[in-house]
Amino acid sequence: MHHTHLYDNPMGEKAPKNVLVHDSPYFKIINFNLKAGQEVPVHSHDIEGQLSVTVIEGNGAFLGADNATLPARAGDVLVADISEPHGFRAETDMRVLVTIAPPI
Amino acid sequence: MHHTHLYDNPMGEKAPKNVLVHDSPYFKIINFNLKAGQEVPVHSHDIEGQLSVTVIEGNGAFLGADNATLPARAGDVLVADISEPHGFRAETDMRVLVTIAPPI
Repeated sequence: MHHTHLYDNPMGEKAPKNVLVHDSPYFKIINFNLKAGQEVPVHSHDIEGQLSVTVIEGNGAFLGADNATLPARAGDVLVADISEPHGFRAETDMRVLVTIAPPI
Repeated sequence: MHHTHLYDNPMGEKAPKNVLVHDSPYFKIINFNLKAGQEVPVHSHDIEGQLSVTVIEGNGAFLGADNATLPARAGDVLVADISEPHGFRAETDMRVLVTIAPPI
């Protein structure tokens, strides 16, 4: 059992700052911390599995294929196949938690 | 790809209100919404796998074996084996996201 406080993690200066929260055979959990204007560009991996993206703090957009966007506000959860194009952009400073199962 | 806004989910009246966010062969995601004073009592399941508990809003405590407690504030993430005793209690109204892999 272990415990992490995401607000202790640093924000990115020039690029999103990724902090590995947990990695096991069951899932990988990564905290992305973005300053306003930063983004994790749309990408995908041609492998089995799914991911969730939970917005902990701030506002921005989830990014998908063909320039699709969805609002990404604190309390929003996006679930996608790992093989589907996905990304996110910060409009304010934003903290996001990504969970990937199985881990990649 | 699907998208949920946890703040749209109802709070529990007499007991924590659970909303299934996602269920797949990869993971199950459940949103627990607790009014101040409510709790998900300590429990465990004798199976393989792990879970994460992320506090989206509010304050309370993570509960463990032998009456152990850890602070549970917005932005806190607890990771435990499913076989380890775990629970949580709300001190203010609290929204929590639980991810279980593999799903049970």
